[in-house]
Amino acid sequence: MPIPSPLEFLKQYLRFHSVSTDPRPEFLEGLAGARQHVLALLSSLGFTVEEVKTPGHPILLAKRLKAGDVPHVLLYGHYDVQPADPIELWDSPPFEATVRGGRLYARGAADNKGPSTAMLYGLAKALEEDPHLPLSITILLEGEEEIGSPSIPAFLKAYKEQLQADLILLSDTCSPTEEQLVITSGLRGVCSLELTVKGPKVDLHSGLYGGAVHNPLQVLADLCSSLHSADGLVNVPGFYDGILPPQDWEREEVQQLPYTEADFKALTGAPALYQQPGFSPQEAIRFLPTLEFNGIGGGYQGPGSKTIIPSQAWVKITCRLVPPQENKTILAKLKAVLLERCPKTVVLEVKEDAGGTPYRLLHPTKDPRSQASLRVQHIFKACEAAVLATFGKAPLFMPEGGSIPIIGLMKDLLDLDALMLGLFTPQDALHAPNESMSLTLFEKSIAAYSVLFHKIGSPVTINT
Amino acid sequence: MPIPSPLEFLKQYLRFHSVSTDPRPEFLEGLAGARQHVLALLSSLGFTVEEVKTPGHPILLAKRLKAGDVPHVLLYGHYDVQPADPIELWDSPPFEATVRGGRLYARGAADNKGPSTAMLYGLAKALEEDPHLPLSITILLEGEEEIGSPSIPAFLKAYKEQLQADLILLSDTCSPTEEQLVITSGLRGVCSLELTVKGPKVDLHSGLYGGAVHNPLQVLADLCSSLHSADGLVNVPGFYDGILPPQDWEREEVQQLPYTEADFKALTGAPALYQQPGFSPQEAIRFLPTLEFNGIGGGYQGPGSKTIIPSQAWVKITCRLVPPQENKTILAKLKAVLLERCPKTVVLEVKEDAGGTPYRLLHPTKDPRSQASLRVQHIFKACEAAVLATFGKAPLFMPEGGSIPIIGLMKDLLDLDALMLGLFTPQDALHAPNESMSLTLFEKSIAAYSVLFHKIGSPVTINT
Repeated sequence: MPIPSPLEFLKQYLRFHSVSTDPRPEFLEGLAGARQHVLALLSSLGFTVEEVKTPGHPILLAKRLKAGDVPHVLLYGHYDVQPADPIELWDSPPFEATVRGGRLYARGAADNKGPSTAMLYGLAKALEEDPHLPLSITILLEGEEEIGSPSIPAFLKAYKEQLQADLILLSDTCSPTEEQLVITSGLRGVCSLELTVKGPKVDLHSGLYGGAVHNPLQVLADLCSSLHSADGLVNVPGFYDGILPPQDWEREEVQQLPYTEADFKALTGAPALYQQPGFSPQEAIRFLPTLEFNGIGGGYQGPGSKTIIPSQAWVKITCRLVPPQENKTILAKLKAVLLERCPKTVVLEVKEDAGGTPYRLLHPTKDPRSQASLRVQHIFKACEAAVLATFGKAPLFMPEGGSIPIIGLMKDLLDLDALMLGLFTPQDALHAPNESMSLTLFEKSIAAYSVLFHKIGSPVTINT
Repeated sequence: MPIPSPLEFLKQYLRFHSVSTDPRPEFLEGLAGARQHVLALLSSLGFTVEEVKTPGHPILLAKRLKAGDVPHVLLYGHYDVQPADPIELWDSPPFEATVRGGRLYARGAADNKGPSTAMLYGLAKALEEDPHLPLSITILLEGEEEIGSPSIPAFLKAYKEQLQADLILLSDTCSPTEEQLVITSGLRGVCSLELTVKGPKVDLHSGLYGGAVHNPLQVLADLCSSLHSADGLVNVPGFYDGILPPQDWEREEVQQLPYTEADFKALTGAPALYQQPGFSPQEAIRFLPTLEFNGIGGGYQGPGSKTIIPSQAWVKITCRLVPPQENKTILAKLKAVLLERCPKTVVLEVKEDAGGTPYRLLHPTKDPRSQASLRVQHIFKACEAAVLATFGKAPLFMPEGGSIPIIGLMKDLLDLDALMLGLFTPQDALHAPNESMSLTLFEKSIAAYSVLFHKIGSPVTINT
């Protein structure tokens, strides 16, 4: 059966309302439709496909295994998308893929239907050109990425044997522009905690009690303020233990990003960028952990003033972590230091969530510390060569500041590293109205992936 | 025309829905009804009464002037009340005065209809017993106390000549119990400011930007935390300039309050009381200024976590001030120090409100620093004697932590000091559901005021 053209396939794929967080029938049908759509493609390409039931949305597991000592890559993607809200801000319907100015607009265009389609069509092209390509491929497509992959840990444990491979390959990270791709070498982990400071049993009149009762908001501000020192670093003993500064060549990669600090400042709208000692802002995003306050509240929330000592106050905190930080250790250190710093005039409650672990891959060929196998080295060289051949520029190699918890999980549970080729850009409006993907990037990505699969299937030499 | 009994008058007075903040007809009628009710009483007592129009609710100005060199007191009270909400928490209807367990329950029972009625009926009793009492009396009853007395400044300026007197007399402050009255020697002033810290133009993804953009919530916490030092004092240069510690006898008055620190702690529900160097908590409330955080907000307010760097954050602050602090000077110092401490990575906006000035009266006879006139000394001695005679205990003399802006205003504009006899207690639930007044205290207050007016009208000697 002839397969549709890539753009035709993608447009149809984007029509399915595959919003994983919304339990209404429209979205359950959308998820099922998207699943069947990609299942049909994989079947046409000669893959055996299993629809793995989970407590949530099923996982698609497809295989094309070749006998013998051939490379084996595990392709990852997700068929679910974020909600389209606020829909009124879209310039065209979010589930009717629309081309404007060389871009394809729809929810999921960039996250992750477009990039994962490019990967699959690159594979299709390579297999069409060489049906006997000596390369084993396992494909894992989940439907719960946008809700934190709750079914993945149990699936990975149950399917551990079936998921053995040399490397994971995915495109769910960012490149700075559509001309300059990045291979993402790492992702920050994330853990969260919520503090509640409880003082008097009810809000008190600040005239009748002010001076005799410690204000919970004052205590909360003190606790929050204590978590950074004046130089901007996190002020928690042991927080940075074991973290290594980037090597010179890693800094040079970051310096090659095709925008200046002024561009970045303008992008954020902040009056000035944050500076931490020894790291440029772009380096800090990629190589340093953070402790961020995400929301705070307490006391009077209306207009004007109200002269109370609030009964309690709260703050939500998340940390972005880098290796070798361990989520539980960091949370324990944070909790200990907060309880130690909290005065006896209030009660401090701490809720924690371990979240996802950080991930970092040393460059398999450039970093002397790397212990990557010859085959992983081969695949990386193949990818760099494929990108250079297709885009005219070699990819940069650097970690990203965001988090994809499944990557750390697959490292922990399957001992698999990942090659993450960034195929969305900052202008693609992920998770926002008018999400889009560049059609030029889409087409070039298919070509690059095709070259990549050919090269992976070529004999392994360290000089590929 | 015979006047109703005090309890009958008060119950009827409490039936009027005289809520000054609510513009609905029911409340405008309630205010007019309350005004007419007290106007009728004053007329029956032989006062000439003027209903002074204002941009808001009228002021009642009543006079009984005696020729010759007689004492002249200005009685102050207010006929408006707080809203009764939440009405469902009342055990009896808030505008149907109900007696239970020796207490009269209704909105306004304690604030201020009960105490001001006691004052007026004490006066009525004294005048009935001695119609020729050599004492001039001006009565000022306003209808906007609960909304900050907006019409009072213009009124005081326009009526300055008519408001000349030796002293203001009022009962709108607190005593610790109904057995132990307090003459309130001072009130704290209050001023407010609201800070907004603005960082990036929109909430940012904490993975993609965290480390490169200063978190506005972190800056806000730093600014808030900088406003107190570790010893609990306000950390703003010049904040305490000119403030004197209480004298030994003033500390002794506070120590005579009929409850312990443990009682007070239990009342607040705070795990421990706040301690500032050199002041007990009860002293701190009365003799120290404060800087309180009344409300804070910013960033994600929903359940769970959201990994953002919030675009902005805000906090509401009020200061309680003591003499000789000046509201505008304190606000200027605060604003200057905040702008100086704010980093250039964000923009800080500060909104200020000057509020009401603090008030303090040195004890006219006990404090050697006092320059009170013989007549003011006479009135204070009369009051202390009247309370001792009626309650069996002399009143304590100490400042209160709350604020009644009109008292500072009358000092500033009319150069009048105030004798504030506290006739509500902590159990009266002012501004809350089930507001009440003790009937025993009500009756004894009338007796005490009657003795007081007789004594004020007696010949002035410094040995009264």
